[in-house]
Amino acid sequence: LAEDDQETVYALVEPLHPADIADLFELIEVEERPVLAKAINDLMGSEVFAELNDHVRELLVESLPAEAIADIAEQLDTDDAVAMLEDLDERDQQAVLAEMEPEDRAAIESALSYPEESAGRLMSRDFVAVPEHMTVGDLIDFLRDSHELANEFWEVFIVDARHHPVGTCALSWILRTPRAIRLTDVMQRDQTLIPVSMDQEEVALRFQKYALISAAVVDESGRLVGQITVDDVVHIIQEEAGEDVLLLSGAGDGDVNEPIRDSYVSRVRWLVANLLTALLGATIISSFSGAIEKLVALAALSPMVASIGGNAGTQTMAVAVRALATNQLTRANTRRILWRELRVAMLNGGTVATLIGLATALVFASPLLGAVIGAAVLTNIVTAGLAGVLVPVTLDRMGQDPAVASSVFVTMITDSMGFFAFLGLAVASGLVG
Amino acid sequence: LAEDDQETVYALVEPLHPADIADLFELIEVEERPVLAKAINDLMGSEVFAELNDHVRELLVESLPAEAIADIAEQLDTDDAVAMLEDLDERDQQAVLAEMEPEDRAAIESALSYPEESAGRLMSRDFVAVPEHMTVGDLIDFLRDSHELANEFWEVFIVDARHHPVGTCALSWILRTPRAIRLTDVMQRDQTLIPVSMDQEEVALRFQKYALISAAVVDESGRLVGQITVDDVVHIIQEEAGEDVLLLSGAGDGDVNEPIRDSYVSRVRWLVANLLTALLGATIISSFSGAIEKLVALAALSPMVASIGGNAGTQTMAVAVRALATNQLTRANTRRILWRELRVAMLNGGTVATLIGLATALVFASPLLGAVIGAAVLTNIVTAGLAGVLVPVTLDRMGQDPAVASSVFVTMITDSMGFFAFLGLAVASGLVG
Repeated sequence: LAEDDQETVYALVEPLHPADIADLFELIEVEERPVLAKAINDLMGSEVFAELNDHVRELLVESLPAEAIADIAEQLDTDDAVAMLEDLDERDQQAVLAEMEPEDRAAIESALSYPEESAGRLMSRDFVAVPEHMTVGDLIDFLRDSHELANEFWEVFIVDARHHPVGTCALSWILRTPRAIRLTDVMQRDQTLIPVSMDQEEVALRFQKYALISAAVVDESGRLVGQITVDDVVHIIQEEAGEDVLLLSGAGDGDVNEPIRDSYVSRVRWLVANLLTALLGATIISSFSGAIEKLVALAALSPMVASIGGNAGTQTMAVAVRALATNQLTRANTRRILWRELRVAMLNGGTVATLIGLATALVFASPLLGAVIGAAVLTNIVTAGLAGVLVPVTLDRMGQDPAVASSVFVTMITDSMGFFAFLGLAVASGLVG
Repeated sequence: LAEDDQETVYALVEPLHPADIADLFELIEVEERPVLAKAINDLMGSEVFAELNDHVRELLVESLPAEAIADIAEQLDTDDAVAMLEDLDERDQQAVLAEMEPEDRAAIESALSYPEESAGRLMSRDFVAVPEHMTVGDLIDFLRDSHELANEFWEVFIVDARHHPVGTCALSWILRTPRAIRLTDVMQRDQTLIPVSMDQEEVALRFQKYALISAAVVDESGRLVGQITVDDVVHIIQEEAGEDVLLLSGAGDGDVNEPIRDSYVSRVRWLVANLLTALLGATIISSFSGAIEKLVALAALSPMVASIGGNAGTQTMAVAVRALATNQLTRANTRRILWRELRVAMLNGGTVATLIGLATALVFASPLLGAVIGAAVLTNIVTAGLAGVLVPVTLDRMGQDPAVASSVFVTMITDSMGFFAFLGLAVASGLVG
């Protein structure tokens, strides 16, 4: 990417699809990104910007003058333009908006007035809505005559005099119906209307559940104000479903393009939180130091008991967090699922406790030590099963995202219970002390 | 759900959307599911079956006679019918197929001949393909005259004489174009063609990357054989993205409707694998039992070192696994991402090591013990950063799913390194022994 290679680079990049150009930016070094953007300046159309990774886009947008950003934003669909502008700070945002055509500016300002991650931010204001009295023929004529229509639409919304949606008509039905038929006779009256304030995760679940291609967005008074199409939702489904693994492991945003400082801040917080829970475990072990001095094997075995419990808790927790995210675990079936997970935990606990108990009894030639570790493992796996369901469910009922904090609590419970059950039983059984 | 309540149940369920009826089955007890199905027998149309959770559908399908299944399968789109039949055992499958109309049977048999989770299983054979010479007007007349068309289509495929797709036309363009214009003048020539043998995860990535609504599926010779629409892909995106958290935690399928025996088998295997890695840790501790006898605080502190490393490793691993799944981590940028994660690890390690080192030095009034634990934590977090990237990348290059086995290896590495670095440094530094 030397200065004199610009023409070669341009020739190489030119035939690529915008989504592939966007990918290219992710593959190269951070410092090279603005250089590449400069080299292929006139290929950097709005389609490329719409496809860029959030962090990469932020970096490039910051390196561009307000005027250039405004030009790109004007070509984008409202939702993509909003995604580009929402990360700018207040002053830069105003500078860009000031450079835009009044109409585009109004659309973006109105979108920015809705909360982040709401349907209002996600929706496009370009959609096709027609009155109830139209026939199929009227609609086709209207579409052929209109030049200022949405780029992409898959369904037409039929609205009443108050601009409330009364039905939806897939384009395929319109194409298959004779011109004289009224739209109200072919439209589907059962609609999934999305309120502007709905959270994008909930929007994505609706699209998925009802297999929607597009949906009408309505304001508080029920007026049609926008449409959301499935291609905008696909990214959200992917992100929301994929983010659980990152949140549960404390990796924050977890994007490989995130600036290192942001990754450090989000991850170190998590490690410090876990340090505190580990401290609790260490305190429990310390309080049994008399027993460990008498039987040093306890020191080698107690981390195993804690670790097996942690693994079992993580399994159950992952299942519960996914089930909550996909609405499969609700108030109506919490007890059934808790009971289900308890039964799985008892089966797992029985098997693993037997294995570890027998092995320990043989290796240390001490049936009592085997019985103690077996009982502690069984106790800890059953505890893990309970905690793995109850912790995420409780966080969810408290309005918290269960993926964010569950694993700190579950690990704390399984660690403490592992050390306490094993060392406590060792003392109580008369094995030591 | 007593026998005499059937009418009440029917009246309650009747107004629900098929997707909501399907959800209802998931909410009730396993034993009640066939009872409910019987009570609302004539509401159990193909739409409900298409929306049912895999495990619930399997249970219901097994309780129905072959003839009833055949009736339902005939009404379903090919891809949904295949999903229903692919879980049956060979003999039941044949019995159902024998009851079906020859045409439907042929379509399903042909779909079943493709590998599981391939585009061939996913595609629908109902699509609209028209020859190159047609005009917009010809197409509209053709669609109005045809009664045996696909239920849902969003794009029309234009094919040449050999039935190879040459372009795609969104229905909205057709509606906006005068009748006399030729389809080849409005169609988009750049197409994303899906080979029948492509894995469904790859199909989903294509849909997402290029924001597709539908795509043509072609056989080895390039002939158009089916279409995949985005609503079928949405489920896959959700499943594939959500499955990483379940796989990484060893929860197998992780579906709350999975039979308990299946959950037990998949999870206990994982716990036993982790037992073996924990055994390695226990062996390392045992080999330092002399040191522990001299300074019992080592027993309390060593699990902390291992656990912090485990957490750091899990963070990096989650990031790497997601990046691999979304094609953000490829051969071209592995070194850059490894270096990035190493820098984050050094920052994290430096911070956490300082905290734990100072706290230990103060609590145990031993600066040397503080220095030893700090150095061990730093070593272990950096090791965790390396392992968190290298283990998933290596598994991926070996053609394994990195989400399945990464965490056993990463935990093994961080546990062993944690115990070894801490206890080894304690001895080497002259703190004990």
